[in-house]
Amino acid sequence: MTHPLLDLAPLTAAHFAAIERRVASLLSTEQDVVIMQGEALLPLEGCIRGGARPGSAALNVVTGPYGQTFGNWLRDCGAAVFDLTVPFHTAVTAEQVGRALDEHPEIDFVSVVHAEAATGNTNPVAEIGEVVRAHGALFMLDAVASVGAEPLLPDEWGVDLCVIGAQKAMGGPAGVSAVSVSARAWERLAANPSAPRRSYLSLLDWKERWIDGGRRALLHAPAQLEMLALEACVERIEAEGLDALMARHSAASSATRAGAVALGGGLEPYVLGAREAAPVATTLRAPSGVDASELVAKALADDPSLPLIAGGGALSKEMIRVNHYGVDATRGAVLSSLGALGAALSEFGCHVDLEAARTAVSETWPSE
Amino acid sequence: MTHPLLDLAPLTAAHFAAIERRVASLLSTEQDVVIMQGEALLPLEGCIRGGARPGSAALNVVTGPYGQTFGNWLRDCGAAVFDLTVPFHTAVTAEQVGRALDEHPEIDFVSVVHAEAATGNTNPVAEIGEVVRAHGALFMLDAVASVGAEPLLPDEWGVDLCVIGAQKAMGGPAGVSAVSVSARAWERLAANPSAPRRSYLSLLDWKERWIDGGRRALLHAPAQLEMLALEACVERIEAEGLDALMARHSAASSATRAGAVALGGGLEPYVLGAREAAPVATTLRAPSGVDASELVAKALADDPSLPLIAGGGALSKEMIRVNHYGVDATRGAVLSSLGALGAALSEFGCHVDLEAARTAVSETWPSE
Amino acid sequence: MTHPLLDLAPLTAAHFAAIERRVASLLSTEQDVVIMQGEALLPLEGCIRGGARPGSAALNVVTGPYGQTFGNWLRDCGAAVFDLTVPFHTAVTAEQVGRALDEHPEIDFVSVVHAEAATGNTNPVAEIGEVVRAHGALFMLDAVASVGAEPLLPDEWGVDLCVIGAQKAMGGPAGVSAVSVSARAWERLAANPSAPRRSYLSLLDWKERWIDGGRRALLHAPAQLEMLALEACVERIEAEGLDALMARHSAASSATRAGAVALGGGLEPYVLGAREAAPVATTLRAPSGVDASELVAKALADDPSLPLIAGGGALSKEMIRVNHYGVDATRGAVLSSLGALGAALSEFGCHVDLEAARTAVSETWPSE
Amino acid sequence: MTHPLLDLAPLTAAHFAAIERRVASLLSTEQDVVIMQGEALLPLEGCIRGGARPGSAALNVVTGPYGQTFGNWLRDCGAAVFDLTVPFHTAVTAEQVGRALDEHPEIDFVSVVHAEAATGNTNPVAEIGEVVRAHGALFMLDAVASVGAEPLLPDEWGVDLCVIGAQKAMGGPAGVSAVSVSARAWERLAANPSAPRRSYLSLLDWKERWIDGGRRALLHAPAQLEMLALEACVERIEAEGLDALMARHSAASSATRAGAVALGGGLEPYVLGAREAAPVATTLRAPSGVDASELVAKALADDPSLPLIAGGGALSKEMIRVNHYGVDATRGAVLSSLGALGAALSEFGCHVDLEAARTAVSETWPSE
Repeated sequence: MTHPLLDLAPLTAAHFAAIERRVASLLSTEQDVVIMQGEALLPLEGCIRGGARPGSAALNVVTGPYGQTFGNWLRDCGAAVFDLTVPFHTAVTAEQVGRALDEHPEIDFVSVVHAEAATGNTNPVAEIGEVVRAHGALFMLDAVASVGAEPLLPDEWGVDLCVIGAQKAMGGPAGVSAVSVSARAWERLAANPSAPRRSYLSLLDWKERWIDGGRRALLHAPAQLEMLALEACVERIEAEGLDALMARHSAASSATRAGAVALGGGLEPYVLGAREAAPVATTLRAPSGVDASELVAKALADDPSLPLIAGGGALSKEMIRVNHYGVDATRGAVLSSLGALGAALSEFGCHVDLEAARTAVSETWPSE
Repeated sequence: MTHPLLDLAPLTAAHFAAIERRVASLLSTEQDVVIMQGEALLPLEGCIRGGARPGSAALNVVTGPYGQTFGNWLRDCGAAVFDLTVPFHTAVTAEQVGRALDEHPEIDFVSVVHAEAATGNTNPVAEIGEVVRAHGALFMLDAVASVGAEPLLPDEWGVDLCVIGAQKAMGGPAGVSAVSVSARAWERLAANPSAPRRSYLSLLDWKERWIDGGRRALLHAPAQLEMLALEACVERIEAEGLDALMARHSAASSATRAGAVALGGGLEPYVLGAREAAPVATTLRAPSGVDASELVAKALADDPSLPLIAGGGALSKEMIRVNHYGVDATRGAVLSSLGALGAALSEFGCHVDLEAARTAVSETWPSE
Repeated sequence: MTHPLLDLAPLTAAHFAAIERRVASLLSTEQDVVIMQGEALLPLEGCIRGGARPGSAALNVVTGPYGQTFGNWLRDCGAAVFDLTVPFHTAVTAEQVGRALDEHPEIDFVSVVHAEAATGNTNPVAEIGEVVRAHGALFMLDAVASVGAEPLLPDEWGVDLCVIGAQKAMGGPAGVSAVSVSARAWERLAANPSAPRRSYLSLLDWKERWIDGGRRALLHAPAQLEMLALEACVERIEAEGLDALMARHSAASSATRAGAVALGGGLEPYVLGAREAAPVATTLRAPSGVDASELVAKALADDPSLPLIAGGGALSKEMIRVNHYGVDATRGAVLSSLGALGAALSEFGCHVDLEAARTAVSETWPSE
Repeated sequence: MTHPLLDLAPLTAAHFAAIERRVASLLSTEQDVVIMQGEALLPLEGCIRGGARPGSAALNVVTGPYGQTFGNWLRDCGAAVFDLTVPFHTAVTAEQVGRALDEHPEIDFVSVVHAEAATGNTNPVAEIGEVVRAHGALFMLDAVASVGAEPLLPDEWGVDLCVIGAQKAMGGPAGVSAVSVSARAWERLAANPSAPRRSYLSLLDWKERWIDGGRRALLHAPAQLEMLALEACVERIEAEGLDALMARHSAASSATRAGAVALGGGLEPYVLGAREAAPVATTLRAPSGVDASELVAKALADDPSLPLIAGGGALSKEMIRVNHYGVDATRGAVLSSLGALGAALSEFGCHVDLEAARTAVSETWPSE
């Protein structure tokens, strides 16, 4: 029986390498790009277990839940970890990073999440990169929630390990992910006796057996369909233009923020500074007395496909998150989300002004 | 280069025949089902050119634009055509059909559109079928916009030629379509010297070369991907249950109608009787002084993917159509559509009550 | 339930038009290209019913079964038809066409099949075109089995209606097909009162409602998946290079011919002149006393996926056809086909030299 | 732009769980089945790192290259490893396993590869399981190359960790893979302080957060397309019947072996005992004086898609491997492979009898 997802000719090494090159081009990077055959957590874990070891000292910037995961991995590797935890309503600053590095000159690894979909903020990576480079530590960036939505320039910013996934602003698959690796990072990993080797977690395996082998033989059978989807999504971005894609996300973010403020009813932007708001998701503080997860449940009752979600874990009562990435980076999705939130707020007895919200969206993001 | 849409193993005759059987089962029909390799206009044209000829007399019920197309085809075939044109705000009745048949006993062909997505009404085919059968004419039904959304029983209703497409309530592809053909219809076509033969329009070719040949060799290479998509959509309907699918469309229709009335602002159901309203689309009359196509343009400015469309042709100034079929047969799509219409009406200075609309939807179609 | 063939965003008119442009570019044509939503028989029938009428005189070159179909359509339109039937083991010559035109100066329509997959020959269209142009008749070409396999230049050759399908050398879908239409052809169709209008067969509908309407609205919902597959196959051809694709088919043809001759056992090329052999398929004459369809059945017993088929209809006893188009235009497919034929011939008691066949293939088509 | 691999609705947890259940049913297992989001090396590594720790003692049966990998992982975990290495031309016996367990009563973990595609043998897992169960050690089985090709009954055989991938006999995707986990194994992993936790390698994460959480929330975004392909391939197996699929592989194996022997020219089965030959691949010893990798290169020159490959690593000069799994488990693929090998052997001056090979295949595996 014929099926479009089965019996495809195997993905050749040359085709795999061509997809790598297109991803590298999307990142404007001259570094090696490795496409790992799993969700972005796989290269993130691979970077940390490859970069840290007993004796390492790591500065781990925590601006959301992934930072906590990174800290755990770092400690698991035997590194001394300095968590720089920033309240979720704000981004970290380069000054804060610089101060921490000054206090702990032994730090040799810095981990940062670029944009935080979970908390709605985005960190000033260009400036942080300058500070980290001056210090000399290896710099790992989780850019899953920023790639495609805002500028991401690992080479220019001095990022040594830059991990991306296609499932957010790129509108692509989640089952494979990529990491760009600087020469400095390769050296560091190679010198680390406890870095994963001959392991699904290993970046070095890809270096030694794939890259250094001339990209002739893959380490194992790839996730072919996810690779083809990654290629298709990069093609689509090339057709729209990366700048246009980023502009669309930026507009969605501004419009959601402005619309939520105009909607009223007690909603407030969770991230205080507009410049620190992530282009992929806008987080909002629920009005006092209203449980955010109940509010979201009510707002989704009519259309479960709306990109609304309550905050995770401890934030579930107070934070509402409006996603606006990929196919949801449109005025329509923004308006539908605000409309559903407004209706749900009304049911909680909050007074909202849907008309004002709509006007604010239109003024912030005029339709063409 | 590998691509999931290319280099598939050819669709075998046995697989093609298996898809036919599943479609027949969806229609609860024992008649032959022919899957034609084009949009539903192809079998519709094939039915009329096969069933009519100089000397034929046809009763053509016009409840929307397709009825006009059918009349033109019938006249083109040299048939005497009696158009029974019904105002677009109402369905035809079996009495009207019966009266027309009584006035013109020579009528030997009756063409009816079941549900009209374009005008939002649905015709009482079970009752019409009884009248047509009593008279003895061949009965052709265009059921593209009803299949999957409301009961459709060609055998029980005495439909001789029942044409369906998968692109509306079935949520499937438009590039292939099907027609069930009664034994009576096959005889009629075979006896018609001007029926298409050895032609892309020909039903008889499928009878003689495919069905009578034991379904061993297709007439030509099929539209394989559309066939696979048709199979996948029938599988999905079997999984959801045809009754559940129909209930979802019926609820969407009632909720849209109730919500639009509650919204106010001068909107009115276009189809006067609720029983005559089609489950796939609700048509609304724009408030006086408001151009429907301008209203729809405004409502779509924010989200062009909403299932809203102005009436076609002469109706473009007065009719707004809310589609609610397939993936749009959800409470969320209904509410988003009404919300966008409400916002657009406000901009035209009409007073609307979004809250009342939402309440009406919720009462008509409670969320589970 | 998620399925990659369902719930796709509708194919936009702009996307459809972009696919048209890529197909036009593949044909190096400045003419309008119409992509019809059915197998290539649909535009072929549309061309003939649009171009012919009572009073027309047509020269119909019959070099295979499709020519017979064209003749029937032409007669059906009321045209006077002059069939120029050429034995299946040879191509037509421009001289033969010129002589027929000289004998019947009233001829205003000429139909030719470029390459004949069914009989394995290919006709000298460039030269024929010159003759037809000098005469002034409208020139229709069926290029389904040549496009992608050998040069096809409708503008340079003066072809007025050039019909292609993607299912042979292009390695694409069969469910949509294309026709390039010259300005002269549009005039002829427009002036023909019996040309199909408001019909699935109508080219004029596409002209008037799609092209002249600025390609803004499609005539009906397209066969979306087939369109996407057509786009993907054109992309793949662009990546391989059209010249490389044609060279691959040409080599497959030469190698099959040489290999079959070297194989011996009584096999002979069906098409006498090597220059007249089609690049998509090689036809062979079975040894005397051996039934071709039995031979093919035996050869396919072990691998039913081999591109072997007995001749159609009256040729079934004497002709064996080796297809070598699309994914089968490879040395491996050629060798496997010859190997299976050789083994089957042995079973019939014919003496074959498999080694010589292999050597002949290798010398004709050296591996890279 | 529309693309069938992008913008799919997210795979729901319920759908994911339904795929798990179908995989469990394919294995006739009541154990928990975890579908891990990577190639089968991922769950294999997860099983070993979860099951072994400093203080463990492992019996590692090495019948091919994967056994070496497992040994390295086991040592990496700090376990005492007893490698039971069997020559590649034979399977291990239950007696050998039993003897090793008797010698080392401290052994608490046994790892075995069921079928070895790389060496062409298959091990008697039912009998081994009995011995391991009597001893009490945890029993891990790599069944990637056996599932779908020969009986695989983890519950009946006492396999505690049974890892499968769909890319061989199942004809499915390689990008996701599954492991069935016995209650005993869960206890062992939970009690292991060094088992991976909060890691891409962790089976326990799936237990604690997915299974024990009621299968309501996935650990991270899945490789959706690979999951859909896995579902499609299981559906296809259900349609063909698992028994029929296994019979097809068994016949392919017998026919390849018999055909190679009959072909002669110095080829010999690599695996001495026919009962120990794997149904997915037949390994052959090259004639003395002929380099296997050169022979394979020559055999593939004409058709690089044939399922032939030289042995890996040290075996590259002496071993030829004929794969016959998935779409290649057909008589045609077997014959084409033997034909190509025969032709290549001729070029090396070896005398082969292609006709005898063909006859042997036909007698071993009669066409239907």
